[in-house]
Amino acid sequence: MPRLWNDTIESHREAVRHATLDATAALVAEHGLASVTMSKIAEATGIGRATLYKYFPDIEAILTAWHERQIGAHLHQLTRIRDQGGDIGERLKAVLMAFAMISHQRHDADLAALLHRGDHVVRAHQRLRDLVGELLAEGAESGALRSDIAPDELASYCLHALTAAGALPTKAAVSRLVEVTLDGLRPVARG
Amino acid sequence: MPRLWNDTIESHREAVRHATLDATAALVAEHGLASVTMSKIAEATGIGRATLYKYFPDIEAILTAWHERQIGAHLHQLTRIRDQGGDIGERLKAVLMAFAMISHQRHDADLAALLHRGDHVVRAHQRLRDLVGELLAEGAESGALRSDIAPDELASYCLHALTAAGALPTKAAVSRLVEVTLDGLRPVARG
Repeated sequence: MPRLWNDTIESHREAVRHATLDATAALVAEHGLASVTMSKIAEATGIGRATLYKYFPDIEAILTAWHERQIGAHLHQLTRIRDQGGDIGERLKAVLMAFAMISHQRHDADLAALLHRGDHVVRAHQRLRDLVGELLAEGAESGALRSDIAPDELASYCLHALTAAGALPTKAAVSRLVEVTLDGLRPVARG
Repeated sequence: MPRLWNDTIESHREAVRHATLDATAALVAEHGLASVTMSKIAEATGIGRATLYKYFPDIEAILTAWHERQIGAHLHQLTRIRDQGGDIGERLKAVLMAFAMISHQRHDADLAALLHRGDHVVRAHQRLRDLVGELLAEGAESGALRSDIAPDELASYCLHALTAAGALPTKAAVSRLVEVTLDGLRPVARG
């Protein structure tokens, strides 16, 4: 087959995959996880049930693929924000604020319970800790942040503290959470 | 029936209930959640399978009862520590350290995924936030802690930050996490 034809098939497959994930996310958001079936997903995607099974063996595989796509997009967003420039304090604050807003807007607790131990989540958490840890190391070196505790421990502190954003009612409360979390990172003179 | 007899039956029932929860926790810890069955639980408890079903309809009911008992014990422990005396800074630090150690020692991620949305967990989290929030309010009034942010928001920050203890390798690292978290609670002069 000519290369162009292969590319066309591949891009068609990608389009069907993405459409399936979008349709599933919409069904889950509207009707809840428990009521979603492969038939309903196929119908909402606009493909046959047999075709759907050629792409995904079951609902969990679709949800995992959707979750991987979400996490990938979030990491991409945080990386872009980190690379925007400004001093280390500004960049760190921007990254932490963006992460807190992601936690604030997530309403996929059902999904998290189902999926949160997947390998893709473990890998994504590691990349997130690395991203934040590198900023904290840079801040410690420049004297803007505390240097008495290892950056990876501080990264873990930050990311856990900011997941409190999930239960906060307003963006103003999320901003305050980011400030408090940052206050834990400042250099301290302990007597 | 005489009252004494009723008491005896009741305390026998309690003993069977507790023995069932202990046996189940031991089975889950040793073999993992997926391999536990009602038959194995009955055998490990030393009662018949039919008797077990008089106490609990299924494994999830047993796990929920076990989890409720655990959470109750933790809240009781934290309340006792809060009431031990000392200044507000010492009491807060002792409560937060105890909570962090509980998070550090918990290895029930499977169970959490299964149960974490239960009503008993929601109520326990609320009591925990209240307990910590009251200490933070007292600290803000005395000037020992920051007063620019509401105590319930700060309580949520604390408790989420301290859940990072679950992934920390050592007790020393847990101590450092508690210090960092407390540093976020100190009064701040912002320019």
